[in-house]
Amino acid sequence: MRQPAHGGNLAWAAALAGCPPSAILDFSASISPLGPPKSAIAAIESQLDHLRHYPDPDYRELRLALGHFHQLPPEWILPGNGSAELLSLAGRELAQLAATALITPAFGDYYRALAAYDAMVLEFPLSLVRQSVAEVSSLSGTAEPVRVMSHLSFVMSDLSLIFDKGQQTKDKGLLLNNPHNPTGVLFSREAILPYLKEFALVVVDEAFMDFLPPGQEQSLIQVVQEYPNLVILRSLTKFYSLPGLRLGYAIAHPDRLRRWQSWRDPWPVNTLAAAAAVAVVQDKEFQEQTWAWLPPARNQLFAGLASIPGLQPLESAANFLLVESQQSSSQLQQNLLKHHQIFIRDCLSFPELGDRYFRVAVRSWSDNQRLLEALSLVVSH
Amino acid sequence: MRQPAHGGNLAWAAALAGCPPSAILDFSASISPLGPPKSAIAAIESQLDHLRHYPDPDYRELRLALGHFHQLPPEWILPGNGSAELLSLAGRELAQLAATALITPAFGDYYRALAAYDAMVLEFPLSLVRQSVAEVSSLSGTAEPVRVMSHLSFVMSDLSLIFDKGQQTKDKGLLLNNPHNPTGVLFSREAILPYLKEFALVVVDEAFMDFLPPGQEQSLIQVVQEYPNLVILRSLTKFYSLPGLRLGYAIAHPDRLRRWQSWRDPWPVNTLAAAAAVAVVQDKEFQEQTWAWLPPARNQLFAGLASIPGLQPLESAANFLLVESQQSSSQLQQNLLKHHQIFIRDCLSFPELGDRYFRVAVRSWSDNQRLLEALSLVVSH
Repeated sequence: MRQPAHGGNLAWAAALAGCPPSAILDFSASISPLGPPKSAIAAIESQLDHLRHYPDPDYRELRLALGHFHQLPPEWILPGNGSAELLSLAGRELAQLAATALITPAFGDYYRALAAYDAMVLEFPLSLVRQSVAEVSSLSGTAEPVRVMSHLSFVMSDLSLIFDKGQQTKDKGLLLNNPHNPTGVLFSREAILPYLKEFALVVVDEAFMDFLPPGQEQSLIQVVQEYPNLVILRSLTKFYSLPGLRLGYAIAHPDRLRRWQSWRDPWPVNTLAAAAAVAVVQDKEFQEQTWAWLPPARNQLFAGLASIPGLQPLESAANFLLVESQQSSSQLQQNLLKHHQIFIRDCLSFPELGDRYFRVAVRSWSDNQRLLEALSLVVSH
Repeated sequence: MRQPAHGGNLAWAAALAGCPPSAILDFSASISPLGPPKSAIAAIESQLDHLRHYPDPDYRELRLALGHFHQLPPEWILPGNGSAELLSLAGRELAQLAATALITPAFGDYYRALAAYDAMVLEFPLSLVRQSVAEVSSLSGTAEPVRVMSHLSFVMSDLSLIFDKGQQTKDKGLLLNNPHNPTGVLFSREAILPYLKEFALVVVDEAFMDFLPPGQEQSLIQVVQEYPNLVILRSLTKFYSLPGLRLGYAIAHPDRLRRWQSWRDPWPVNTLAAAAAVAVVQDKEFQEQTWAWLPPARNQLFAGLASIPGLQPLESAANFLLVESQQSSSQLQQNLLKHHQIFIRDCLSFPELGDRYFRVAVRSWSDNQRLLEALSLVVSH
């Protein structure tokens, strides 16, 4: 049976575990365990009587709500059918440049979006370093450093090579995500700003940025109006647990967004998804709940993983942890499925990581505990 | 205020009418008045608990259901976020050819999809002819001729010019819809088959074909496995009144569909739309109801329009009628909105038609009557 190319392919996992997909405890998809918010479901239900009408092709109400949320004029925002749809449009634009620098290990769909338009790709690997806690904190450079419990971390050290090598950058693009997936590294705003002055186009995928509370987030949204060469991609599907609904948006200069709009169909977001989006960005209670849940649950999971011999989790600013494993991670994955109906994400689709890493989402206290107990049984075998 | 580019922009109409959008009687969007089917709403509701999972990127269940519906293997079917999304992919493929022949007047989004990839467009206008009923029937060439009540009709006479002019067709594409929008003309299967032997790629948009019952439809689906250069686009949003849900699919050779898939994001159809699609294609009762409703309702509307001095409807195989008007149709549109809160589709976006045509959807008996009464008042003024 074919290995799933993306996290969350439950059908494959269920077949291996010999149980229905609903019985699987899914740590493979980096989706919040708290949602979907009731406000999203209520908004969807309120629109079931309106499916006989086309969505507004300008998505005025949706853009206003997102603009209000980010304190931006609505024309700086383009809603899409998941941020993956907008990534395809970014891929088309990046392909018009001489090359695109990609920070690796990189989300598989980045390669797909760049290959779809024959973009030339230059890979710049993050460095894996073992160092003291204090060093990690200053290198990851957060304003309010995320609590660091590990001595193992990826750092953005090698992107500078593109300058060191004397390569021309003015005709090139840069594509990265922040926080970085699958490592969980958070780059500071200040660490990325210099690249905005160097590259013709910088696309920052901030799909996991909303997991950081207002005081800690490092989004570039606050500077987007100063940089016409900056595109920010955001997703509403991870934080609000709505991957089935497909809901994302791009934030960039209105001229660029108008061009992207002419490349695609007039109604990319369906009525139900648009209504849910308007509801969730106003759901302050759900947002506060998420920010209250994540840090202690992540610390619990981190400490538990670190205590299992042969496993070494990496510090993460997001709702997932990358774990270095002395055992084959695909073997761990299969044993967890067969004996515990638990699904973790192997990292075979990241060639830089291969079979010695796996990724797990942070879930509820009791789910995390179930994973830790199962892992300690599986690893010790 | 900006004129809506597409039918169904209710916000614009409501502002002109000075009433909420829900108070508008909408004849502008060619959507069935019978739906959405209860089966669609039930399917959506049954999936509200599953939004926390990604859709299956292979859409196995959806492709199986659509394949079963059309008696095709599932790999010949590619679901999309409305047929408009698939039209964009067709546009990219057509743009790789020397030129694309377009039958005009053409749906505005065809120009958008072709322009998005700088396709070269050659326009081939349908001919407007005035002739006897018998001639019309044989020219439109249906196996079971649709009942013809008019002496005015568009016919596919000029596409042959592409041959007459001695133009090379082997390196060109052809894009048309059948039934044709906005004229309602139905081309017979036999009328299109010769072009499949001539053109490098033929894209037939069959968005309105399901309004014809099994005995009368002229779909090319039954021959698609013989022509690797044929693409058929289908929509579920018009027949099942689900334009807010975005639901369409392409039928073509699996190699082509795999290529299209690599050009776009992995989850174009959301979980709710996929479930609704599986439900509606199995809803034989709704299908039978629609086929029972349409012919008499269309005859009623046709006869009523023909009886109003200065208006001349055209025969149509679809759920809409194109009407020639001696008065300015945008003036008629505005007066109907202001005095009767009724919204018809002007044809200003079709340069070949301009201000002397309008298009109306076929609706229920009483809605059609309301339109006819309002029109007789507005036209006589």
